[in-house]
Amino acid sequence: MAEHVVLREVGPRDGIQMAKRFLETGRKLEWARRLAAAGIREIELTSFVPPKVVPQFADADEVARGLPQLAGVVASALVPNLKGAERALAAGFRHVNYVLSISEAHSRSNVRRSTDEAIAEFDRIAALKETEAGRGMVLGVGLATSFGCTLQGYVDPQRVFEVARRVAAGGADELIVADTVGYGNPAQVKALLPPIIEIAAGRRVICHFHDTRGLGLANVAAALDAGVRAFDASLAGLGGCPFAPGATGNIATEDTAFMLESMGFSTGVDIEALLDLRRDLESWLGEERYSGAIAHAGLPKTYRPVR
Amino acid sequence: MAEHVVLREVGPRDGIQMAKRFLETGRKLEWARRLAAAGIREIELTSFVPPKVVPQFADADEVARGLPQLAGVVASALVPNLKGAERALAAGFRHVNYVLSISEAHSRSNVRRSTDEAIAEFDRIAALKETEAGRGMVLGVGLATSFGCTLQGYVDPQRVFEVARRVAAGGADELIVADTVGYGNPAQVKALLPPIIEIAAGRRVICHFHDTRGLGLANVAAALDAGVRAFDASLAGLGGCPFAPGATGNIATEDTAFMLESMGFSTGVDIEALLDLRRDLESWLGEERYSGAIAHAGLPKTYRPVR
Repeated sequence: MAEHVVLREVGPRDGIQMAKRFLETGRKLEWARRLAAAGIREIELTSFVPPKVVPQFADADEVARGLPQLAGVVASALVPNLKGAERALAAGFRHVNYVLSISEAHSRSNVRRSTDEAIAEFDRIAALKETEAGRGMVLGVGLATSFGCTLQGYVDPQRVFEVARRVAAGGADELIVADTVGYGNPAQVKALLPPIIEIAAGRRVICHFHDTRGLGLANVAAALDAGVRAFDASLAGLGGCPFAPGATGNIATEDTAFMLESMGFSTGVDIEALLDLRRDLESWLGEERYSGAIAHAGLPKTYRPVR
Repeated sequence: MAEHVVLREVGPRDGIQMAKRFLETGRKLEWARRLAAAGIREIELTSFVPPKVVPQFADADEVARGLPQLAGVVASALVPNLKGAERALAAGFRHVNYVLSISEAHSRSNVRRSTDEAIAEFDRIAALKETEAGRGMVLGVGLATSFGCTLQGYVDPQRVFEVARRVAAGGADELIVADTVGYGNPAQVKALLPPIIEIAAGRRVICHFHDTRGLGLANVAAALDAGVRAFDASLAGLGGCPFAPGATGNIATEDTAFMLESMGFSTGVDIEALLDLRRDLESWLGEERYSGAIAHAGLPKTYRPVR
C-alpha cells in the first residue's frame, strides 16, 4: 500500500492574488471543478480579504455559491481577520485558513499588526468555534516567514515553535508552515519540521514552500523525510512575491505531483489533466509568470501513477 | 569544520555543446579563468569529440593551450573514444572523462556502439595509463542514463551496478553517475547511490543531474544524504537535451552552490562573482535557454557563505 500525500491547491487564492487580470467567477469555479476532476481533493478557493486590498477576491461570496459544485473537495478560504472569518462562515465555508507572520517586520508590514496582536486576532477567530455560526469550523493556521524574512532577515526557530505551541493550544486544527519568501533549505526543513510535528500532537502539519530560489522541491523532499504528508502547491507555480519579478512563486502542483508519484507516494492526481487545465488557465489569465518543468519537458516515458 | 562539497563546472563543455553561437576561444578561457576566480576548482573545459560532430569544440587544442592560465584548477576534457583521449593527453590534459550509456538504446543512438562495445573502448583508453603519454592520467567514467532513458525507458539498476563494477575494476578513477535526461527522483537517488559508493571503494563518486523535470536540486539533496560530495553543474543551467525545447538543462551552478552553502556545506564558491560572470556569458552566447532562480530572486538577506 503506497503512502498518500495530500496536495492542497492554493492557485485560486495565493496563485492569483496579484494577477494582472481579474479572473471572472465562472472561470474560478471551472478551475476548481477541473482541479477536482484531476484528483485534487483540497483547494484554497478564495480569500475574504477586503476587496480594496485585493480586488481579485471581490467575488468571494459569489465563489462560495459554487461550493455545492465541489462535492468531495475540502474547499477552504483564507481569512485575514475575525470579520473575514465571519464572512467566510456565513458564505458557507467550514475550512478557513488564517495566516500570521513569525517575523515581526513582516507582520507589521503585511497586516500592520505585531505577531502578538495577530495571535490575539487568531484567538477571536478560534472563539467562533463556540458560536452557532462557527460550529464545526476547521481552522488552519499559517506560520508565515518560518524560514526567514526578506525584511527582518533571520527568524528564530524558537519563536516559530513558541507560536506553533500557542496556536495549537488555542484551537488551531492544522499548522501550515510557510516559507513565504523562499529562504528555506533542506537542512533547515529537516531541523524545523520534526519539533513542529511534535508540537502539533496529531494535528495535521502542512508545508507551504515557494520556489523563489529554486529549492521548493528539494524542501518538499526534505519535509517528506521529516514526516510531512501534506503540501500546498499551485498549478503552473502561480503566485509569489511581487518584489522578485523574474522569480517563481509557489511550487508547481504538477511538478510536485510528478516528484511524489515518482518517489512512490500516491497523490491521486492525474498530471495530464492538470497540464490540460494549465493550458486553459494560461489563456484565461494572460501574461503572468508560469513556471514548472513538466509542462515543457513532459512526463518521463517510464512514468506510472501510483495506485 | 564544515564539510566540503565539490562543484565541478561543466558549462564550457556540456553547457555549450549545442549552443547556437560558436564561442571564441578567448571567451572560453576567460569564462574558465573567472570561474576559477569565483572559487570553482574543477572545470570540464572542452571536448575532443570530432569537430564534424560538435563544431563548438573545433578549438579544443587551442583551449588546451590556456591550461597554464588555470593554475590550481583541475581542468578536464571529455573524450568520446581512444583517439579523443590521445588528443586530450597530447594537448596537455591529465584529467579526461569518458561517458558510456547504461541504456543500450541511448548508447547505440548516441555513439553507434552497444554498451559493451563502449566498455571495450573504455578499456583501450584505460590502457593508455601504461603508456608514456598516459602516465598519471586520471580517468573519470560517466554512467549516462543511470536513472532512465528517453529512448529505452526503464534502466535496470543492476546493469548500472554491473557496469560500475566493470569500469572500477578496469581502471576508472572516478565514477560520474548521470541522470542524462532528467528522469531521476530523490527516492531513486537514495536507492542507487549507496551501492555505487560501495562499488567505487574509495574512488570519488560524482553526481551529474539535469533539471529537465525540475528535480535537479531535490536529487542533489538526496545524493548528499546518500554520501555524495561532488556534483556537476553548469552556470545558468546551460546545456540539456535538444528534444525538450522549453526544458532546463544541467542544474545551475549558482543555485546549487546556494543550496549547499545554505545547508552548511562549504563550496568555496563566490555566488555574486558567478552572477557577474553569468551576465557576461549571456551577452557572449546570445539567445540560449538560461535557467536558475538566484539570478532572478537574489541571495537571501541572511545568506552567508560557509567558511
